[in-house]
Amino acid sequence: MTTTYQLLYWPGLQGRGEFIRLALEEAGVPYEDLAKQKSGMPKIEASLDGGEVEHPSFAPPVLRAGDLLIGQTANILMYLGAKHGLAPRAEAGRLWANQLQLTIADIVNEAHDTHHPISTNKYYEDQKKEAKARSKDFREHRIPKFLDYFEGIVQRNPGRGGYAVGSRLTYVDLSLFQLIEGLRYAFPKTMARLEPSYPGLIALHDKVAARPNIAAYLNSKRRIPFNETGIFRRYPELDK
Amino acid sequence: MTTTYQLLYWPGLQGRGEFIRLALEEAGVPYEDLAKQKSGMPKIEASLDGGEVEHPSFAPPVLRAGDLLIGQTANILMYLGAKHGLAPRAEAGRLWANQLQLTIADIVNEAHDTHHPISTNKYYEDQKKEAKARSKDFREHRIPKFLDYFEGIVQRNPGRGGYAVGSRLTYVDLSLFQLIEGLRYAFPKTMARLEPSYPGLIALHDKVAARPNIAAYLNSKRRIPFNETGIFRRYPELDK
Repeated sequence: MTTTYQLLYWPGLQGRGEFIRLALEEAGVPYEDLAKQKSGMPKIEASLDGGEVEHPSFAPPVLRAGDLLIGQTANILMYLGAKHGLAPRAEAGRLWANQLQLTIADIVNEAHDTHHPISTNKYYEDQKKEAKARSKDFREHRIPKFLDYFEGIVQRNPGRGGYAVGSRLTYVDLSLFQLIEGLRYAFPKTMARLEPSYPGLIALHDKVAARPNIAAYLNSKRRIPFNETGIFRRYPELDK
Repeated sequence: MTTTYQLLYWPGLQGRGEFIRLALEEAGVPYEDLAKQKSGMPKIEASLDGGEVEHPSFAPPVLRAGDLLIGQTANILMYLGAKHGLAPRAEAGRLWANQLQLTIADIVNEAHDTHHPISTNKYYEDQKKEAKARSKDFREHRIPKFLDYFEGIVQRNPGRGGYAVGSRLTYVDLSLFQLIEGLRYAFPKTMARLEPSYPGLIALHDKVAARPNIAAYLNSKRRIPFNETGIFRRYPELDK
């Protein structure tokens, strides 16, 4: 693969694009991040509009890889994982990694809906009351249910090293790192209370953060800070 | 493949299990549907509880295929599609089919949240006001946005036959059929108004319904009727 990848994603936020950035950074492959180029927006919009591309996406992130234009976060990660040693080689392992990634996508969707439970077309301020109710449920029921599940996956993985799948790092581990990061940003009080119950996940988070390519990335300007335009938003009234 | 598949899904509803049933029925392969066996529930629960299986799922549907236990609807369909000629053979086509299936999963999630916008742990009656607001947004913005997208995919597919991907039936077509069926059930007034704008999708729906294996299935007792425990629910107050 000598092609330079292009990541097409909205500028100014981590969002779902961040799961792709982490895989590209860990793999150490060159990529253009169109979110960071002034001329990026028309190319991002062209990947969504059906007029000019064969396989338009419903929403970013989109990855251009040579002639391929690939949409949907888990789909992009499945592609990158196979190409760059970030996924198991055997079919059973690939399916398992994809299954876990789709379950991460589920909680990421739910995290988004904590601040937009009624409509993505309305401001947060116009659905704040409902956001409080949904966040309460998310904090009390959904975060523990998902993290219990993922903790069990890490704890019971027969492979060595504390990873989610097998005995080597996969894109699932990178995404679990990002999930913990995002939950900590959006729900700091809740996570401070819950984290002691998830030693396997926290150890995995720390292990990912310490990998040379990831550590360099997190310390670079390429890592956009969390903010209130992304999926994980810090609204203190949604965290108790 | 001589193994008989086992589908593990909640009894009494179509839900996400229905996307898997349609693929199994179209493929004409034998399968046990544990939702329809009195002894099914313990096996379904064992596939979720981590204690007894190597790859527990967060939620059904789960497919047992020989030694494999596969979770997440789109992941199961990717597996079945490759095994039974319901997906493209080349990588680019497989990725494209998976991308579209994940986009279908997104609108299916949103359809679920129309009746449960605050919490899956509470009754619909306890979040009815919020459900009305979310349904209004879903009817006015989200259904048209998704169906515009899928209509464009079908219309602009260079392959013959009116399918979503290439020039043969794939699991994506089966899922688009089920999406239309579900939206018609849950939002009959809205869909009656919108359908004239989507001739490609409606023709595809009808083409799928007329396939011999699917037609036989739809006329059988194996097809559980839509009802108010599934994802697509008919609450007249949510449809205008």
